[in-house]
Amino acid sequence: MKLEHSGRGRNIFRFNYLILQGTKIHPLWGTAQLFVHPRFMHGAATSSELGVYAYSAAQVKKAMEVTHYLGGENYVFWGGREGYQTLLNTDMGRELDHLARFLEAAATYKKKIGFNGILLIEPKPQEPTKHQYDWDAATTANFLRKYGLIDEFKLNIECNHATLSGHSCHHELETARLNGLLGNIDANTGDPQVVLRAVDITTGWDTDQFLTDVAESTMVMLSVIRNGGLAPGGFNFDAKLRRESTDVEDLFIAHITGMDALARGLRNAAKLIEDGSLAELVRKRYQSFDTEVGAKIEAGKADFEYLEKKAMEWGEPKVPSAKQELAEMIFQSAM
Amino acid sequence: MKLEHSGRGRNIFRFNYLILQGTKIHPLWGTAQLFVHPRFMHGAATSSELGVYAYSAAQVKKAMEVTHYLGGENYVFWGGREGYQTLLNTDMGRELDHLARFLEAAATYKKKIGFNGILLIEPKPQEPTKHQYDWDAATTANFLRKYGLIDEFKLNIECNHATLSGHSCHHELETARLNGLLGNIDANTGDPQVVLRAVDITTGWDTDQFLTDVAESTMVMLSVIRNGGLAPGGFNFDAKLRRESTDVEDLFIAHITGMDALARGLRNAAKLIEDGSLAELVRKRYQSFDTEVGAKIEAGKADFEYLEKKAMEWGEPKVPSAKQELAEMIFQSAM
Amino acid sequence: MKLEHSGRGRNIFRFNYLILQGTKIHPLWGTAQLFVHPRFMHGAATSSELGVYAYSAAQVKKAMEVTHYLGGENYVFWGGREGYQTLLNTDMGRELDHLARFLEAAATYKKKIGFNGILLIEPKPQEPTKHQYDWDAATTANFLRKYGLIDEFKLNIECNHATLSGHSCHHELETARLNGLLGNIDANTGDPQVVLRAVDITTGWDTDQFLTDVAESTMVMLSVIRNGGLAPGGFNFDAKLRRESTDVEDLFIAHITGMDALARGLRNAAKLIEDGSLAELVRKRYQSFDTEVGAKIEAGKADFEYLEKKAMEWGEPKVPSAKQELAEMIFQSAM
Amino acid sequence: MKLEHSGRGRNIFRFNYLILQGTKIHPLWGTAQLFVHPRFMHGAATSSELGVYAYSAAQVKKAMEVTHYLGGENYVFWGGREGYQTLLNTDMGRELDHLARFLEAAATYKKKIGFNGILLIEPKPQEPTKHQYDWDAATTANFLRKYGLIDEFKLNIECNHATLSGHSCHHELETARLNGLLGNIDANTGDPQVVLRAVDITTGWDTDQFLTDVAESTMVMLSVIRNGGLAPGGFNFDAKLRRESTDVEDLFIAHITGMDALARGLRNAAKLIEDGSLAELVRKRYQSFDTEVGAKIEAGKADFEYLEKKAMEWGEPKVPSAKQELAEMIFQSAM
Repeated sequence: MKLEHSGRGRNIFRFNYLILQGTKIHPLWGTAQLFVHPRFMHGAATSSELGVYAYSAAQVKKAMEVTHYLGGENYVFWGGREGYQTLLNTDMGRELDHLARFLEAAATYKKKIGFNGILLIEPKPQEPTKHQYDWDAATTANFLRKYGLIDEFKLNIECNHATLSGHSCHHELETARLNGLLGNIDANTGDPQVVLRAVDITTGWDTDQFLTDVAESTMVMLSVIRNGGLAPGGFNFDAKLRRESTDVEDLFIAHITGMDALARGLRNAAKLIEDGSLAELVRKRYQSFDTEVGAKIEAGKADFEYLEKKAMEWGEPKVPSAKQELAEMIFQSAM
Repeated sequence: MKLEHSGRGRNIFRFNYLILQGTKIHPLWGTAQLFVHPRFMHGAATSSELGVYAYSAAQVKKAMEVTHYLGGENYVFWGGREGYQTLLNTDMGRELDHLARFLEAAATYKKKIGFNGILLIEPKPQEPTKHQYDWDAATTANFLRKYGLIDEFKLNIECNHATLSGHSCHHELETARLNGLLGNIDANTGDPQVVLRAVDITTGWDTDQFLTDVAESTMVMLSVIRNGGLAPGGFNFDAKLRRESTDVEDLFIAHITGMDALARGLRNAAKLIEDGSLAELVRKRYQSFDTEVGAKIEAGKADFEYLEKKAMEWGEPKVPSAKQELAEMIFQSAM
Repeated sequence: MKLEHSGRGRNIFRFNYLILQGTKIHPLWGTAQLFVHPRFMHGAATSSELGVYAYSAAQVKKAMEVTHYLGGENYVFWGGREGYQTLLNTDMGRELDHLARFLEAAATYKKKIGFNGILLIEPKPQEPTKHQYDWDAATTANFLRKYGLIDEFKLNIECNHATLSGHSCHHELETARLNGLLGNIDANTGDPQVVLRAVDITTGWDTDQFLTDVAESTMVMLSVIRNGGLAPGGFNFDAKLRRESTDVEDLFIAHITGMDALARGLRNAAKLIEDGSLAELVRKRYQSFDTEVGAKIEAGKADFEYLEKKAMEWGEPKVPSAKQELAEMIFQSAM
Repeated sequence: MKLEHSGRGRNIFRFNYLILQGTKIHPLWGTAQLFVHPRFMHGAATSSELGVYAYSAAQVKKAMEVTHYLGGENYVFWGGREGYQTLLNTDMGRELDHLARFLEAAATYKKKIGFNGILLIEPKPQEPTKHQYDWDAATTANFLRKYGLIDEFKLNIECNHATLSGHSCHHELETARLNGLLGNIDANTGDPQVVLRAVDITTGWDTDQFLTDVAESTMVMLSVIRNGGLAPGGFNFDAKLRRESTDVEDLFIAHITGMDALARGLRNAAKLIEDGSLAELVRKRYQSFDTEVGAKIEAGKADFEYLEKKAMEWGEPKVPSAKQELAEMIFQSAM
């Protein structure tokens, strides 16, 4: 697992290249920026224009080559314009088919050039489009399964995008993990009150905030540990300073606070895991399934007739407390 | 396609049975109510208690038998308590595994008793749980695919739940349709301002509103027509009167307005389809793919090298307008 | 009441001037653009910098003079940056005091130059700041009352901003009207699903949509008629085309659809008012107050002892239906 | 300032009375429950029915007397049904007039019986109505100002309701404080992801959660300290256990965690205030106003001509960083 600052688009490669020469530092990932130029106004791989599809393929091809050349560990697809503004003028089925063909070609090309990094998709529900196809982790997993791409891609989860799609960050991380898709984490945070994030009028882009809340970073780290870490992925700081933060030192303060928050989260998560009370509380909750009947159910061998017989035999089930307040107390005590 | 009033839980069967004797009317669907009684406080198929899992299986078994006996055309699963209040005390992976086993057993039992109706899952993002596993159409599709159940189930889409999950109703219908899962529609509407729907304190249940907006019902009907209708599914009026609507006539007025809204939506959708301008606008938007290169892409035969060559050859792509305003004008003109 | 296209900032005056020479057409309103330039990053009248406060005053002074010179009928304040990103670094009390002093000075200057137009404030909850001081109509009314400015200003209501603050557009219009503050309407609409509106990355500004929904425009027009019209205010089309709408004709289509929607709304509202059933339904609902006791309550002469005596005398009150479904049916019938 | 557990409605008085006899403990506040019984379906003071208005007055009269008799320190109005479901059937102006008359009569009666406690209004945006008249602190302040009641009432702020209205809890507390209205705090929290809180189907009421987040409780306590404490108000634990928390000990754990969170918040806030860096950062941000020109502006003596002259003289203003990242770092360091 690595903490590293990455960026988007063409410039980042030059920046990384200058720094990396003669060092052992690799880019965490590379990407192609396919959403700012007007040619991408209807999307890149999902553009209604064939020419744009081809142009985007050429650009991703080049970006993958450069990432490989620089020793990048992963490659990220963030489909900022892969979505729609209104279904009235959109053939969603055809656009999704095109997206699948595009990603398929990318997976093929990756193997061809011998790039062993992971291909990552970064879910986001909307902005700049009204609806983005990679809405959240589950939506993206469904897409990958439908088109037979589930083994070729993993996800890059960003807490901010989780919030925008109505989920907690922890939910998105766990959903990715349970689908075998947790690959990388964008280490910035969402503002639960700002369903709409502050738009930077000068650069024309949203200003992602650095993660400073230690309770949230602890939840994040619990998922990462359960996932056995993130390698070859890592954390990247995609966040930017607020437009109003114009001092050079603001950049350092923001990174330090963000990294500190993650480090404190990791220590808290370790404490929680070493202490074991929370895991024990969860284990106990499900212990009625650690039985012969439970095993039969989990093995798919308990049909409705069998279960009805058991239910009649047992009568009204006894249902214990969920111990939510205790779980929250244990969690808060580790902060 | 049928317009019919259905309800939830045990009572409906009695009600339907009394009415249906000696008629040719069948229930649109049957269901089991597995969320009000305290035994279901942690869920039914996803309860942490084995006894509740078995109890629920027995209840669904009986409800499926009764639905079959009454000539019901479908069977609905609405997992009101299949979700979590906090991830701190929840083993989400194990709960989802249990849910899959439960639905698998249901599909097996359906065949065993010769019930030919469709098994429907009704997505809903939350309420009464903080997070419900059948969050939206895409999330449910991913679950069905992951556990190999995609061919055994379809979805029952409710506009209100679409709104709660941050989507338009039309989006959910189209997502269901494109995944081959559009089975039935709950004919009530969401209130975009009421992210929180009015809770009826007496009955302890939310009061779904009848659909009255003709623009929305037109969008709904466009999806239904594209789907080739809903048979053997249909529209059901799960909506209830407001707590403040205490006159007997309110019940009739609500149903009449709701059915009229759907009828007007169907006429508008038919008008739009007969007129053809909207479909033509969409067709034209993608016509650059109706070419040799486009066909190659859609057949999965255009790799990155080929596309790069084309991109170089063509230069900067010309990107036409998306004609959103025209699409909206055409749509509004049919109202 | 007038339908007119206005814009923001400096350019509009030139545009208007070129068109207006030798005509009888006046600008609906003028305004100063105090949010794009980095000098306004912390606000204009609420900037933490004295120099920015003075600069803004000079700019508004000039804009008011030009508006007056061009025969403008109103002057609009939209406080895009008058708010905060975090309360941690903000003295909200001091900033609000500054804003009041600034608006006070504007009201004084208006009189000094003999400009008889109305000063309008346009509420908006957030974007680009996390929290904007003119959050909604009620918040702005409270501010104006607290600082003794309630008679000097009216409001410019935008449906889009209503949606962003969790209200229906109709609610905001009625709140403005009941506070005697309904002055002007921005004729664009919000997207209930897009809590976050599509950001145009090129221009760095949100793309407001034109109002196309006739049900909404009917509600808007009901408020306008109840208000006795909007003169000297009017409707302005602040909305812009989508970034993807690049044809010249898109601009015309958007304006035509928007104006048509308002015209159809006005006709529907007139129909509803002439028909009278909706007004009669509302009048009847409150008729128990059209009595001697009711009059006493409304005159502030019914104290708690008197009311207790009446309550004892009357026993359990009879509560009739609210007739919401009937009201919705009447409303929909006029569409 | 006091930490105390209070409840709603009739039962609480009996409960308190039994406990309080022979002790020095007083109820923090009393209230009347005017929203569950069907007679209040259209509201209490804003019901369309005269009889309900009188009935409600009698009930509040009695509740005020009992609160006074028990030595209660405040009296709370929570207008759960004072709002509307749709504006189509509602005369909002008349309902607000009735509400004002009702509160006026309550203020008069309070004085008559010699009750010196504060009258508190608890803002909440919606639920169970679509729109509640006491939407948030600013809306309620506007109402109180419009009807000349601003000196007779204060506010009871609940973090959960702040979240529901799109604000942070801190924003609501500060808005109340700056309007001289911060009277009491409901010590429960909102769930930013659950715009819709889990509804307890058995009791038919939402389950407010206890505050466990120390960062939030620190923000809360910063406002309380700035307000010079809350006396004669305090914190009340209106929160309830989750429906799934059925053990007796859950009740204790929840209260302990909630009180601990507030205690830790108070210690953090004290640390931040003693340290002084955050206050200093804010003070410095506005220091350009601590000058002769600044004083003139704040005294309302700087007109537009004077400010224009200053702006010309000074040229382009220099705008320093807002130091948001530093403020966040200081805040997090105190956790």
